[in-house]
Amino acid sequence: MSAKKSVYKPRPVSGFPEWLPQERLVEQTWFDHIRKVFESYGFCSVETPSVEELEVLEAKGEVDKEIYVIERLHKDDDDDSEARLALHFDQTVPLARYVAQHFNELVFPFKRYQIQRVWRGERPQAGRFREFYQCDIDVIHVDNLPLHFDAEMPVIMWDVLSGLPGLNSDEILLQLSNRKILSGVCQHLGIDDIVSVTRIIDKLEKIGEDDVKSLLQENSIKNSDIEDLLLLASIKTTKSAELRERAEQLGIANDIFAEGIEELCFVLDYLSHLPENAYVADLSIVRGLDYYTGTVYETRFRDNPDYGSICSGGRYDDLAGSYINRNLPGVGISLGFSRLFDYLRSQNKLPIGALSPADVLVIIPSTEQQSVAEETARILRARGIKTELYHAPQKLKKQLSYAEKKGIPHVWFPPFGNGAPHEVKNMYKGDQQQADPEKWMPAKEK
Amino acid sequence: MSAKKSVYKPRPVSGFPEWLPQERLVEQTWFDHIRKVFESYGFCSVETPSVEELEVLEAKGEVDKEIYVIERLHKDDDDDSEARLALHFDQTVPLARYVAQHFNELVFPFKRYQIQRVWRGERPQAGRFREFYQCDIDVIHVDNLPLHFDAEMPVIMWDVLSGLPGLNSDEILLQLSNRKILSGVCQHLGIDDIVSVTRIIDKLEKIGEDDVKSLLQENSIKNSDIEDLLLLASIKTTKSAELRERAEQLGIANDIFAEGIEELCFVLDYLSHLPENAYVADLSIVRGLDYYTGTVYETRFRDNPDYGSICSGGRYDDLAGSYINRNLPGVGISLGFSRLFDYLRSQNKLPIGALSPADVLVIIPSTEQQSVAEETARILRARGIKTELYHAPQKLKKQLSYAEKKGIPHVWFPPFGNGAPHEVKNMYKGDQQQADPEKWMPAKEK
Repeated sequence: MSAKKSVYKPRPVSGFPEWLPQERLVEQTWFDHIRKVFESYGFCSVETPSVEELEVLEAKGEVDKEIYVIERLHKDDDDDSEARLALHFDQTVPLARYVAQHFNELVFPFKRYQIQRVWRGERPQAGRFREFYQCDIDVIHVDNLPLHFDAEMPVIMWDVLSGLPGLNSDEILLQLSNRKILSGVCQHLGIDDIVSVTRIIDKLEKIGEDDVKSLLQENSIKNSDIEDLLLLASIKTTKSAELRERAEQLGIANDIFAEGIEELCFVLDYLSHLPENAYVADLSIVRGLDYYTGTVYETRFRDNPDYGSICSGGRYDDLAGSYINRNLPGVGISLGFSRLFDYLRSQNKLPIGALSPADVLVIIPSTEQQSVAEETARILRARGIKTELYHAPQKLKKQLSYAEKKGIPHVWFPPFGNGAPHEVKNMYKGDQQQADPEKWMPAKEK
Repeated sequence: MSAKKSVYKPRPVSGFPEWLPQERLVEQTWFDHIRKVFESYGFCSVETPSVEELEVLEAKGEVDKEIYVIERLHKDDDDDSEARLALHFDQTVPLARYVAQHFNELVFPFKRYQIQRVWRGERPQAGRFREFYQCDIDVIHVDNLPLHFDAEMPVIMWDVLSGLPGLNSDEILLQLSNRKILSGVCQHLGIDDIVSVTRIIDKLEKIGEDDVKSLLQENSIKNSDIEDLLLLASIKTTKSAELRERAEQLGIANDIFAEGIEELCFVLDYLSHLPENAYVADLSIVRGLDYYTGTVYETRFRDNPDYGSICSGGRYDDLAGSYINRNLPGVGISLGFSRLFDYLRSQNKLPIGALSPADVLVIIPSTEQQSVAEETARILRARGIKTELYHAPQKLKKQLSYAEKKGIPHVWFPPFGNGAPHEVKNMYKGDQQQADPEKWMPAKEK
């Protein structure tokens, strides 16, 4: 019927992922689970606009991120008077701006989760998107933030990671440390440029001990100090007693160092109800970003550490100092949702099934039975059962085949005539039974 | 402690709304309800990227929309070789592109819902945002789409609108018509420029009968034809029998007209189980957009029709003709979520309550009881109860005051000593009772 037309054949946009309906159904179960866990700890949801004023993003001094600005295609003169807008590249800067802007309307400690897309104009590659979801939790308090929250963060993320359909949490390792430990050691050793040393130690897993040594030497660190730093970075344990013991053996007399060890011990003790292989205190973990000041977190695949951290965060002393004259310490952790989802998707590990959310398809036996079928569908829906009504009184075979193609697990046959019963067919088991639309419930397992 | 610093005081970005946590909690109940209704009819979720290639957006020939393009702040040479990207301004163009691109992987009729933000560089004003949520459902089929779906759309949206917390559905009116009716009349009267006449009739509610008359006269429509057109537009009824009767009285012998009347009667009959004041066939409704070809929908506040339609849509013959050589008719309806939410918000009609999603706050009586409190919180959470654990063994009064400020409806007291019972305090009723963390359930009503 349709004549050959000139069409613009659409193609995927590199770095901007999109899923098929059956993949999206799994993605929804992930989001539902994550939200449920976050709320089960009393975190409230916040969403911020997709954009911030460019000046807000730049106030944080991290303009090396690949920022996307937005602009109207057809500008008018008024546009010049308005602030330049850019898509947010994370959810921490928007949180800082949000807390500063609404400071007087929030109750502290302010516990929020945020699940939104963020944008980075990076070169797209496996696991690196230009548009992707992040799932963040942060707790912000005024002046002093109890260590309790540093300890709660990895517990919450463990609840998340151990309940994501398709992800085997045995393959995941939460790594913890505390920035004060390395800072204290540097202070003790008389090393001034702690930032550079931190950035070099952060590369240990990626480039190995030899290259880290060379880099430290280039930064004029003495060989004996390098040995101490590497000995420190080699400490890995799940027990606070062992951590204290090995810390003592280093013979570092420094208050910051001791404080870092004690804070990390507090967190370790709090995690003791988790599976023992779920987490480890790993003193080589320092996080690259400058703003962390205490506890830090990373999360890796055991069998593929090079994929990078899928869930990271830490404690920061001054969240919103660029926007408000208040001292607002915080601690947060962020799940790289799209990275993780796509990793499992590309390995065919996601439990992908139906193309439809429906529990049951109500068929229309004939034009005469159309209104009975409609009424049946309404009864089922009112009882919370996801019910698709077939769209026309077509051949039975065609209606059944539709249910099959969409993966709808049950087919409902309204009475074919007066006095005849309702029947339901289980599409997986194949059996067909009488049923009452006022009472029937779909089997839990599809 | 904090010295006076130079800060960039953030301000709201005009047209990009953001809500406080207690408002966001209500917004979430809205999204949950809408998703539940859409899925209860077997619609699957689709999300598309926030951007499309500019060429895709322009292929639809609707560049009069205020499109935002995105660009990297720091460009490199490679950027010039890449397609220009722009934020989508609706969810219909992305759907068309999605269906064309994934055509061979979808099952038809393809029933999808989409709940995402869209962007339009309009001048911000009450009810007009630059970034806002739309909630769309569409059904797409190949070559022929059964009328069943035209009838199902307003039923689904009625289920949505009659269950949104804070919205009184008595104030809402679904208006239906069919484009073929006016087209048939124009054909019958020998009027060639149907598009112009449709656009003028579309303004009837806004500018009134006299101005519509003048505009039609300016378009060289004869006075007797204008009388006929206005008589047609005055027809409003909920009954198919009455619609047929009044259509006959017009004495229009035209097949397209008759087809439009019969289609509208089919839809009206399908709606007969809805409350009678929920909907009306109103032949003045034609929708401004050119691509509708049959059934059309609008939705208004009875007491404030000038606010404009909050939920609109219709049938289109050729969704994706710009992207694929297939004939893909569809029907869809879109809820202007943010417009509606903000309308009620600004009138203080939203049921705004707690600042926290938690059902219960477990307090920490003392340092000794810390681990019992932690364990209690874990038990409650494992049973699906949203449980916040207070963050430090502070004074009881302080812990209770925190629950009060956040609107947490229950406070849990773990045993203060050996053999003492657990107790729960209902913060609204004030009563305190013994409770078992393995059995207790929070009251449904907060």
